[in-house]
Amino acid sequence: MRILVLGGDGFCGWPSALHLAASGHDVTIVDSLVRRKIDDELGVHSLTPIHSPAERMTAWHEVSGERIEIVELDLARDYDPLAELLRTTRPDTVVHFAEQRAAPYSMKSPAHKRYTVDNNLNGTHNLLAAIVETGLDVHVVHLGTMGVYGYETVPVDLPEGYLTVSYPDRNGEMRSRDILYPTQPGSVYHLTKSLDQLLFQFYARNDGIRITDLHQGIVWGTQTDETARDPRLINRFDYDGDFGTVLNRFLVEAAVGHPLTVHGTGGQTRAFINIRDSIRCIRLAVESGSEVNGQVRVMNQMTETHRVADLAELVAALAGCEVATVSNPRKEADENQLAARNDLLLGLGLDPIRLDSELLSAEIEIARKYAERVDRNHIPCTSYWTEDRRNAAQEHDR
Amino acid sequence: MRILVLGGDGFCGWPSALHLAASGHDVTIVDSLVRRKIDDELGVHSLTPIHSPAERMTAWHEVSGERIEIVELDLARDYDPLAELLRTTRPDTVVHFAEQRAAPYSMKSPAHKRYTVDNNLNGTHNLLAAIVETGLDVHVVHLGTMGVYGYETVPVDLPEGYLTVSYPDRNGEMRSRDILYPTQPGSVYHLTKSLDQLLFQFYARNDGIRITDLHQGIVWGTQTDETARDPRLINRFDYDGDFGTVLNRFLVEAAVGHPLTVHGTGGQTRAFINIRDSIRCIRLAVESGSEVNGQVRVMNQMTETHRVADLAELVAALAGCEVATVSNPRKEADENQLAARNDLLLGLGLDPIRLDSELLSAEIEIARKYAERVDRNHIPCTSYWTEDRRNAAQEHDR
Repeated sequence: MRILVLGGDGFCGWPSALHLAASGHDVTIVDSLVRRKIDDELGVHSLTPIHSPAERMTAWHEVSGERIEIVELDLARDYDPLAELLRTTRPDTVVHFAEQRAAPYSMKSPAHKRYTVDNNLNGTHNLLAAIVETGLDVHVVHLGTMGVYGYETVPVDLPEGYLTVSYPDRNGEMRSRDILYPTQPGSVYHLTKSLDQLLFQFYARNDGIRITDLHQGIVWGTQTDETARDPRLINRFDYDGDFGTVLNRFLVEAAVGHPLTVHGTGGQTRAFINIRDSIRCIRLAVESGSEVNGQVRVMNQMTETHRVADLAELVAALAGCEVATVSNPRKEADENQLAARNDLLLGLGLDPIRLDSELLSAEIEIARKYAERVDRNHIPCTSYWTEDRRNAAQEHDR
Repeated sequence: MRILVLGGDGFCGWPSALHLAASGHDVTIVDSLVRRKIDDELGVHSLTPIHSPAERMTAWHEVSGERIEIVELDLARDYDPLAELLRTTRPDTVVHFAEQRAAPYSMKSPAHKRYTVDNNLNGTHNLLAAIVETGLDVHVVHLGTMGVYGYETVPVDLPEGYLTVSYPDRNGEMRSRDILYPTQPGSVYHLTKSLDQLLFQFYARNDGIRITDLHQGIVWGTQTDETARDPRLINRFDYDGDFGTVLNRFLVEAAVGHPLTVHGTGGQTRAFINIRDSIRCIRLAVESGSEVNGQVRVMNQMTETHRVADLAELVAALAGCEVATVSNPRKEADENQLAARNDLLLGLGLDPIRLDSELLSAEIEIARKYAERVDRNHIPCTSYWTEDRRNAAQEHDR
């Protein structure tokens, strides 16, 4: 297939682009390279040294004999170039990673909230409007988040996008209907993925665009078979308070002997997926695109759930480091239960990698290799969901 | 109360601002004046001659002895001036009309779709982010639309924002929960109001902003007690295919002897409200703001429902003109039933004006007074929801 990977320079986009290319697809990466600029803004860099786009392209050509093109384009701003790119490349599939993806970054300040809404919504909407304008039959595969379901304890295993509900009609008879699972996003970032769902619902219904929305759990791990083929292909490994997802943050903390920073009680249960499974899910979604028809296909891209405190204890035991409870910067329930269905991706052939001590130790080894690159000052999350949360943190530190 | 009226130069905003001022409130209008620029873009103007903002302010001062200030500001672009305005005026309430409000305009072209999403979403989000930044306790009253519920026949009287549903938990026991009514917007414009609902839900929950979202039916009529006090205060009366709402379009068509343009079978049932009731609802929502706490308050701002074909026949009989069926430019059900609850505004004291022949005749008289200003070429809707709809219209005209 001919595939555009929007956001293909990022943490999930890059290994996905390589995996799709290695699987025989014709891949073009489209990226504004904004994530590299955000590194500069925050004054922190990926634990792993990331090479320039040109070096990455050269390295992939050298190891694979194949070429991946990269087009620098801001999805949220450059509508006409986007439409022109669609016309000239005529992709079968567009994989859309091109959104600001960090909850803490989205809550740092009014400007960060506004950037996240503006960038993510206009980007997704531009893609949909451009597909309609060009009249192409494109399958859109979008990276969403399990966070659209919210992190409150609910009495159901989270279904894949839709919930069958009943309610009495005006005569008191019960009626049944499938609805988009009622969304309860916990940050502006998660909010944008909830908004995306409504954009997709509308464009699928009005214009017949085929769309798969992947509600992804928290990704852990860094390297994949493809990114490991050359040092210049290495993937990001973010550990800072804004972009470091919880388990990867623990792994880097373990590698440098920093206490593992658990927010609140650590009683939050979250869905997880290894980066190698994540990119396989993307490929499975892409290759099954012809099955999507009418309704947006939503699949839960996660393989297991864990309590944050349990993960911290597991990593601490492996690495012999401490666990430190810090005041939770987020406004969320202290504790929650969570279980979710992932039958659709299992049905497409996903064979999950299970989180275990051996894999975690391997990740800690990767982190140790680059330990001298860690800036410990950037480990704590200093983005607070509300002023109350900021004040609570200051009180906690006193 | 001290009130900012965002979009206070427009069709609903202007009479609302005057009504709030006449009711003793301290009103400042905030508007980008973009609606006047769209008149120029489309080459069509309000049937009624609209005076400049300065003339309007002067006239209001002359007839009332009171002053309304107007601040020119683009809500979607001018974030810092907005935050500064909030800090200096410290409003009790912000009434938010500042969104692109026409479904056909939102579907004219990719650029119009993109403008509508960009303007409406960033505008609403800027307001919410600025309220959080300033820390003010502001009640937001937002003009939404009944269209978020969708126009399919459903077996319930549309509730006010929330639907109580039940579903089996993981043990098969039935659970019950109030959810935002599942949204089914029928155009990009309606979509933006659905997106707004999620913004409001998040900011009410995370930041405790008090928000009332008014799901308004189709407004008909033009003048109010306040706009009738001086010719310079006259309100808009849009009749063109983009901004003319259905009943007002029929009234102008009747006044100039144009066949009434019914889309498809006219079997669409819609909710309606007279402009005089609309502005009273705004005042009732504003003055009851202290009742809003925690959850977003959603009220259905409509007073009756009618089939479009029935309204066309009623107006045709009054004016002695013909009804012409035109190919429906919208992608929607040919026929639908619709009933909705409006208990909340009735409970606050709304005493509905009922649509009747006398009131319709009075509106036709207003329209006749300005009949020479009508450009008949702009009456048909030439904005098509899809290429299929455009082709169907061309086939119909052949």
